[in-house]
Amino acid sequence: MSLIVVGTMAFDAIETPFGKTDQIVGGSATYAAYAASNFIQPINQVSIIGYDFPKEEIHQLISRGVVMDGVEMKKDKKSFFWSGRYHADMNTRDTLVTDLNVLADFHPQLPDSYQDSQFIMLGNLQPTVQMSVIKQLKNRPKLIVMDTMNFWMESAMPDLENVLRQVDVLLVNDAEARQLSGQYSLVKAARTILTMGPKFLIVKKGEHGALLFHHDKVFFAPALPLEDVFDPTGAGDSFAGGFIGHLAKTKDISFENMKTAIIVGSVMASFCVEKFGPSRLKEITKADIDKRLHQFRELVNFDIELS
Amino acid sequence: MSLIVVGTMAFDAIETPFGKTDQIVGGSATYAAYAASNFIQPINQVSIIGYDFPKEEIHQLISRGVVMDGVEMKKDKKSFFWSGRYHADMNTRDTLVTDLNVLADFHPQLPDSYQDSQFIMLGNLQPTVQMSVIKQLKNRPKLIVMDTMNFWMESAMPDLENVLRQVDVLLVNDAEARQLSGQYSLVKAARTILTMGPKFLIVKKGEHGALLFHHDKVFFAPALPLEDVFDPTGAGDSFAGGFIGHLAKTKDISFENMKTAIIVGSVMASFCVEKFGPSRLKEITKADIDKRLHQFRELVNFDIELS
Repeated sequence: MSLIVVGTMAFDAIETPFGKTDQIVGGSATYAAYAASNFIQPINQVSIIGYDFPKEEIHQLISRGVVMDGVEMKKDKKSFFWSGRYHADMNTRDTLVTDLNVLADFHPQLPDSYQDSQFIMLGNLQPTVQMSVIKQLKNRPKLIVMDTMNFWMESAMPDLENVLRQVDVLLVNDAEARQLSGQYSLVKAARTILTMGPKFLIVKKGEHGALLFHHDKVFFAPALPLEDVFDPTGAGDSFAGGFIGHLAKTKDISFENMKTAIIVGSVMASFCVEKFGPSRLKEITKADIDKRLHQFRELVNFDIELS
Repeated sequence: MSLIVVGTMAFDAIETPFGKTDQIVGGSATYAAYAASNFIQPINQVSIIGYDFPKEEIHQLISRGVVMDGVEMKKDKKSFFWSGRYHADMNTRDTLVTDLNVLADFHPQLPDSYQDSQFIMLGNLQPTVQMSVIKQLKNRPKLIVMDTMNFWMESAMPDLENVLRQVDVLLVNDAEARQLSGQYSLVKAARTILTMGPKFLIVKKGEHGALLFHHDKVFFAPALPLEDVFDPTGAGDSFAGGFIGHLAKTKDISFENMKTAIIVGSVMASFCVEKFGPSRLKEITKADIDKRLHQFRELVNFDIELS
């Protein structure tokens, strides 16, 4: 039951109230692959990188079961670069620089060896790029999960609507759910979005947790209260990687198992934010993950006697 | 195991995106008493009202087991009046009018018949007023719960610190926890506040739920995702009433039972916001409450297998 992860492998430069980095490795597919590799291997990666993407990072990804056949390397261009500055509350940020570089030429070609993958994670990308990956699949996979952002709602809504009709699970944040649906209430927003294609909607609320909607059912996963959120970059992608990694491992796409997958995603996000870049995701062990899963259970478990 | 509720019984005029009320009954002790009366009776009320407070409301409260011996009625003054306008997100509001009226003369006298009460809810009031109630208690009750607000942190911090040293549970919102502790991280804020007197801290986050801190333990209760939040006024007081009502009913002040109490409080808050004023709290039955407790359990329950 292998997994395809589509997204960026890139560089970020980040400023938070806790510090500032020079260019470090980032990208949605990098975070998602590191997170998912704790649960499922191989991971069939689809991305594009420039000549400057570190060989060492590639080796680390390969050593964690990430297959690079679908990662194009452009010898004459730089990797995608994003730079941002987080506000004091860490929930909002300003983009300082976006250099598309190789991303302007991203026309992913799915290797034949990827065709039997049953789980697809489409990271946030131009909707036509996401659609082109779906169209290359010879058989409909078991589950297509998709991330997107407000930028595409403003600049490419018809394309976005086309992709939405093809996916099973949509991942957006609360502001994006409101923008996509035109509804302020997240319950009403979910009802609208679930008519647009996805059968499941996950609304990410950062430090306030995440909601899963499916038909008239709803599940809430908290974020772990942390002493310090060091760098939120990649938290959503780590969440996505943990979520789909757990589903691919267990091969169970029921609502009940998606609840667990969301907790697993929240666990991976909680690790991600503890250090700059994906570095914390590379350190953690299965024991660390299990310990934190226990913490999440303790965080929300309660007894109630109903007569 | 009767309960003392101290706070305002007042009038509010409210504007929300959904509508506008003329003067309707409100006040922290009104909401808390209605909420708590579902779990424990009698409720020994301590408040002050003017000649204009409706007799019908008093009769309704008495019929729900609320004892009025500690409610002073001023024949020559009006009841406390607050008017506010909620912003579109319903999480923030502007105060339009605050007429203290009788509240300027509030020097509560605890009737002798209240002395055996083991649970005390101190609604948000001037800290010296809260303290005067504590000082009138001949024996230390089993549990003192206290609500406060940023206004007292800015205008009466030494008095507030004095009361904090006497209470078991402090209820504040996230901004107030940050202001009181000088810490942005709620985990760090809790650690600081738990050195100031309270053994338990509840941080209310409105639509984002509530956190309970005790020593190094933390519990998170979500808010129920609602289609419409009609009027948030009184939600925090209904939460407080449900919380202490459950504790007084079960006579168990362990951390484990406080988790359940917080869910009960969240249930009462979720009803409160469905209509203007306390009207929804007067309609609901035990079956309604039990059904919603089930919804909360469904909302957060997940299965996880750890090896």
